[in-house]
Amino acid sequence: MLEKLKEEVYKANMELPAKGLVLFTWGNVSAIDREKGLVVIKPSGVDYDKMKAEDMVVVDLDGKVVEGELNPSSDTPTHVELYKKFPNIGGIVHTHSTNATIWAQSGRDIPAYGTTHADYFYGPIPCTRKMTPEEIKGEYEKETGTVIIETFEKRNIDPKFVPAVVVHSHGPFTWGKNAAEAVYNSVVLEELSKMAIYTEQINKDIKPMQQELLDKHFLRKHGENAYYGQKKK
Amino acid sequence: MLEKLKEEVYKANMELPAKGLVLFTWGNVSAIDREKGLVVIKPSGVDYDKMKAEDMVVVDLDGKVVEGELNPSSDTPTHVELYKKFPNIGGIVHTHSTNATIWAQSGRDIPAYGTTHADYFYGPIPCTRKMTPEEIKGEYEKETGTVIIETFEKRNIDPKFVPAVVVHSHGPFTWGKNAAEAVYNSVVLEELSKMAIYTEQINKDIKPMQQELLDKHFLRKHGENAYYGQKKK
Amino acid sequence: MLEKLKEEVYKANMELPAKGLVLFTWGNVSAIDREKGLVVIKPSGVDYDKMKAEDMVVVDLDGKVVEGELNPSSDTPTHVELYKKFPNIGGIVHTHSTNATIWAQSGRDIPAYGTTHADYFYGPIPCTRKMTPEEIKGEYEKETGTVIIETFEKRNIDPKFVPAVVVHSHGPFTWGKNAAEAVYNSVVLEELSKMAIYTEQINKDIKPMQQELLDKHFLRKHGENAYYGQKKK
Amino acid sequence: MLEKLKEEVYKANMELPAKGLVLFTWGNVSAIDREKGLVVIKPSGVDYDKMKAEDMVVVDLDGKVVEGELNPSSDTPTHVELYKKFPNIGGIVHTHSTNATIWAQSGRDIPAYGTTHADYFYGPIPCTRKMTPEEIKGEYEKETGTVIIETFEKRNIDPKFVPAVVVHSHGPFTWGKNAAEAVYNSVVLEELSKMAIYTEQINKDIKPMQQELLDKHFLRKHGENAYYGQKKK
Repeated sequence: MLEKLKEEVYKANMELPAKGLVLFTWGNVSAIDREKGLVVIKPSGVDYDKMKAEDMVVVDLDGKVVEGELNPSSDTPTHVELYKKFPNIGGIVHTHSTNATIWAQSGRDIPAYGTTHADYFYGPIPCTRKMTPEEIKGEYEKETGTVIIETFEKRNIDPKFVPAVVVHSHGPFTWGKNAAEAVYNSVVLEELSKMAIYTEQINKDIKPMQQELLDKHFLRKHGENAYYGQKKK
Repeated sequence: MLEKLKEEVYKANMELPAKGLVLFTWGNVSAIDREKGLVVIKPSGVDYDKMKAEDMVVVDLDGKVVEGELNPSSDTPTHVELYKKFPNIGGIVHTHSTNATIWAQSGRDIPAYGTTHADYFYGPIPCTRKMTPEEIKGEYEKETGTVIIETFEKRNIDPKFVPAVVVHSHGPFTWGKNAAEAVYNSVVLEELSKMAIYTEQINKDIKPMQQELLDKHFLRKHGENAYYGQKKK
Repeated sequence: MLEKLKEEVYKANMELPAKGLVLFTWGNVSAIDREKGLVVIKPSGVDYDKMKAEDMVVVDLDGKVVEGELNPSSDTPTHVELYKKFPNIGGIVHTHSTNATIWAQSGRDIPAYGTTHADYFYGPIPCTRKMTPEEIKGEYEKETGTVIIETFEKRNIDPKFVPAVVVHSHGPFTWGKNAAEAVYNSVVLEELSKMAIYTEQINKDIKPMQQELLDKHFLRKHGENAYYGQKKK
Repeated sequence: MLEKLKEEVYKANMELPAKGLVLFTWGNVSAIDREKGLVVIKPSGVDYDKMKAEDMVVVDLDGKVVEGELNPSSDTPTHVELYKKFPNIGGIVHTHSTNATIWAQSGRDIPAYGTTHADYFYGPIPCTRKMTPEEIKGEYEKETGTVIIETFEKRNIDPKFVPAVVVHSHGPFTWGKNAAEAVYNSVVLEELSKMAIYTEQINKDIKPMQQELLDKHFLRKHGENAYYGQKKK
């Protein structure tokens, strides 16, 4: 069942330690089969070096296990919420990557300070509000999804143009058209998070980059008029 | 004698350079056999790449060598003090890992700023007071243990819930149910120490995380109602 | 056509990930054959581990593709502008290397704080002004070259003596007598960028190094009276 | 001639890139045969991966080449000055290692903030004064040695107890009883330099460690009453 997607999700998960984004079993990747309405996700707390493609767990959009011997990631309800509300995304990643997590812990949006950011994220990467005691004590992982969705809705951010968020006092989630693109965005997020920390240190009065430059770089790589790479030849 | 425990302690010691926590011969891991009242510990100043499982030294709870050709780690009396007072711990690690040592040198507790911290440590990681001239000139390594114990007792911290400390102007000790878990906690401590340094840099007014979130994350992984991982299936 | 130069440019490009200067396909190296007036440059958006020497693209000094199946780097017009105005340079590198990009994002020149800088760059490394909305919306990549040239002309900096620039809100370009030297200068730039960030952190009142020491170190390695290395024996 | 010492110096030089202390050809190690009054040193500007033990150059205490096809390191006169004035040292290392160089560039002594420092350096690591224009324009490399010696003499520091210095606006030199120990001290210096930078960042009011603790840790590893390691068994 969904063997091809399991292989993709497995490979995307294995990229996380390879790219230095996770320690131990921290972090998880999922992908969705939109036609079948089924999500494939990493099992909870399994060592990366023992994990196999067939260990990936299949859940439905209620978060119920449809296939798999192991428990799905404890963050599964967060992934499911995002898939339900963000119809254009096909893969999701959660990590505690060092520099993105630092922004999450500081409770701040990551400002767009340069073209490295603008090439992949069309504006600041939002930080959610703190969760309420009720949300934390209730269906916590599901509510984590809810607070992410609220952040994008209230601030009128299109998750296709800003495929990342940092959850307050927690860490980053990224997404993309598939699992591989979501991992790619996690790597970029970690790098620009690091750059942004130090940019502020050597220029205390730094302002976000010009809107025109943000437009130029994002649209050079995304959308109808993109001209970066080999695709359009 | 205690061959299995020696093998465990040897492997745990070898994890320290593998995880980037020690330079040269810095750092040491021990474990205790509670029934026999004997501690197995790394020999002092031996290169990791020449060390073998049979080089591990066995000492009793007075710190006396019971078996082994080599001198035990000079920090042995600290380990022994902790084993005597913290009855639930089975393994101890001492390193000078960069970021945890920075907090030790700064003389500050490491605040709980996010869920990476809360997943393993149930509150701030305490920094001991400075040692007195008398303690330093006396049985220094034993007194290092005493000041750690004092820190937990005076502040009413349960070492099972906060399995780490930074010793003022010195460096971290961590522990766990066995040597492997103590090393795991050292790796986590180093990572959250790094995150905490930068969290303060990009948000000067940062406060520790909400108590509710700290509760949620720690108890999600520890204690009776834990639901992370595969154990409860 | 230009097989030897393609091989050089290919090897220089492969040095970028090897030296930790680029993630994914970010970054590009070119070199010029001054006699033929032709530039060899990396193709756009091709994975380093799939790239071959024969994939290098040949363009003329109008930026038109003369040979090659693939699109040239989207930054090709920047490279071409620099080759046209800086007659002594034979190779150019563009990266988003972490620490140099931090300076670019902060919009600041990189001051010469020590001999590591002075050994290769004869004075501060300039940061360009912000580009105008017209420049960004027009021939953006060509204008990036124009603003770099303006920076060197207005400030009367000889690009032979300061073979690097950081483009405001973007990242670094370096050059040299050939592709390999341009890459070498990118590696040095990244290292001195890192040093300069922290130099300011531990000494808020730091001033640039003495002119005499700058002279001594640069001229010890460059120009007629150089005496570093084995060349003059 | 001095084949054994050449082999030692060669191996010590190769440790510099292995330990991450140098880029390219930066850095050099020497050692002295005190009986013969001859110094063996790395050749200038030779790639580490092409260098062989027989490439090491032999110079006398006037800095004249006694044997060797290649130019000795351009820093040879600095090494020679130190050997002449510091009679107890057998090996010297110069690098531009990132964090030690940051202190040199900042023009500040490296304070002793913790036991990682105290285990190897008995007090702050001094930063020299700036060199005068005359010293820079004169016999610069020899004068670099002179200003190091002046620093230790004026401040009454014993180079045996503080086997390192940072030269203002330049970088570190370390030494030891032989080439291997000098390299060891360079590794430690780089690590404690990093720790000291961040220690100041998270505690603006930090003071150097207690004298008693400095005494204890240095003397635990050095001198007659040392009890660390296996040597005394």
